[in-house]
Amino acid sequence: MLFGRANLSAKLEKAPRIDNFLGFPGISGADLGARFQGHLHAMDIPLQSEQVSGIFSMGDYFALATGKNTYEATAVIIAGGVVTGGPFPGEERLLGRGVGYCATCDAPLYRNKVVAIVGSGQEAAMEAEFVAEIARKVYYIPLGAPAAPPAAPVEVIEAKVLEIKGQDQVDSLVLSDRTLELNGVFILRDSLSPDALIPGIKIENGHILVDQGMRTSIPGCFAAGDCTGKPYQFMRAAGQGQTAALNAVQYIDAKKAEK
Amino acid sequence: MLFGRANLSAKLEKAPRIDNFLGFPGISGADLGARFQGHLHAMDIPLQSEQVSGIFSMGDYFALATGKNTYEATAVIIAGGVVTGGPFPGEERLLGRGVGYCATCDAPLYRNKVVAIVGSGQEAAMEAEFVAEIARKVYYIPLGAPAAPPAAPVEVIEAKVLEIKGQDQVDSLVLSDRTLELNGVFILRDSLSPDALIPGIKIENGHILVDQGMRTSIPGCFAAGDCTGKPYQFMRAAGQGQTAALNAVQYIDAKKAEK
Repeated sequence: MLFGRANLSAKLEKAPRIDNFLGFPGISGADLGARFQGHLHAMDIPLQSEQVSGIFSMGDYFALATGKNTYEATAVIIAGGVVTGGPFPGEERLLGRGVGYCATCDAPLYRNKVVAIVGSGQEAAMEAEFVAEIARKVYYIPLGAPAAPPAAPVEVIEAKVLEIKGQDQVDSLVLSDRTLELNGVFILRDSLSPDALIPGIKIENGHILVDQGMRTSIPGCFAAGDCTGKPYQFMRAAGQGQTAALNAVQYIDAKKAEK
Repeated sequence: MLFGRANLSAKLEKAPRIDNFLGFPGISGADLGARFQGHLHAMDIPLQSEQVSGIFSMGDYFALATGKNTYEATAVIIAGGVVTGGPFPGEERLLGRGVGYCATCDAPLYRNKVVAIVGSGQEAAMEAEFVAEIARKVYYIPLGAPAAPPAAPVEVIEAKVLEIKGQDQVDSLVLSDRTLELNGVFILRDSLSPDALIPGIKIENGHILVDQGMRTSIPGCFAAGDCTGKPYQFMRAAGQGQTAALNAVQYIDAKKAEK
């Protein structure tokens, strides 16, 4: 199964001109993306439009949580790109104690409470609207490029996030122009930081540690692309994805042979 | 400078159908090769049609020997593919003592002597003809797919090479149907084994050892593609080539800054 966004990659879609993807000199990101889509189509590979918010190694298999469903997999390839902007002060300390990455998953915990959604893109705005049906009050603080804002009763605040505060549980969000008293903060970036996505994975200099076969520190878990390090390039990512895919197949075959 | 064959890669040229080069589902190897040629043309990168037979680290720079010329380079990227067939018995032991990889370079040493050229493709046949102008007798033993054979007085023998023999110096070549008494054997494969190409480079399991940045054990020397290991795939090779190129540029910039 391939999980991802319908446009595959916002970064690709916005690239005005790409000269270093072999075979396509001077192509626009949008056109190259269309070629990738065409390849998926030709190979009959459907795209699952759900964001995976957690991958858990269960020993013999992996459990993948999305906002809507849980999936099981023998092998996983992480190709989630890089987190731009890094974690906010307080984010990692309060993760799971008021800080979350999947609003639709955890919304029921915030019935009649006050929640902020910090995020980018259309999906974050939609999640804010969804949470607003359950929570007492929802703030939406857009990250990066502006998208269509969520509808009322969500309150949109255009400010910079400075810190998430709280002793054992989130109690406030410090913005550049005010401080919000609240019970939960959902951060919906385009990419999750890898250690938040898959607990226990080995990280080196902020990237997922892989060997030449794109194997991570967790058996059966592979990684490819920008999440494995620099240079951040489409061609490199594609080549690594191929290596990861072939080695994942080999891993699955070996697992089958064991039985 | 880009050194290579005009067709870029015999392996690519002969591939009937490639489904896993992203953006080109179901393309033939010949068509994909034409896209690569087109990219080189669009970027105005000329191809130097000389085979590099030795790369020598001179401390601050590299010396590259081809049959015709010697070149100097600050950084080198090896993308020579894999040697198919492995070395012949006796080949490595007698390298430089009658066994060579560049007939046109060493031909003068064999004036009035007996030499065999073991090789594939048009270039090997041409080298055999060239050596025949100097040596007393030249045998040509084709490797792999047949090409147009060299003209007389070169003697073409269609047989399998079993062993190269000699105490301190080559004295005979054992073929499947006869043994030739001779003074030198030139082996002209499509790819040179990496340790023969660049003395002192670290090899692991028959491949050039590289880190994630495609750096070899020799500073300033990078490698990409099949010569660095499996899986042998065009897409992986292209991505690694990109990583190697960007890191080679970084290496050259750092060298310049030192001065």
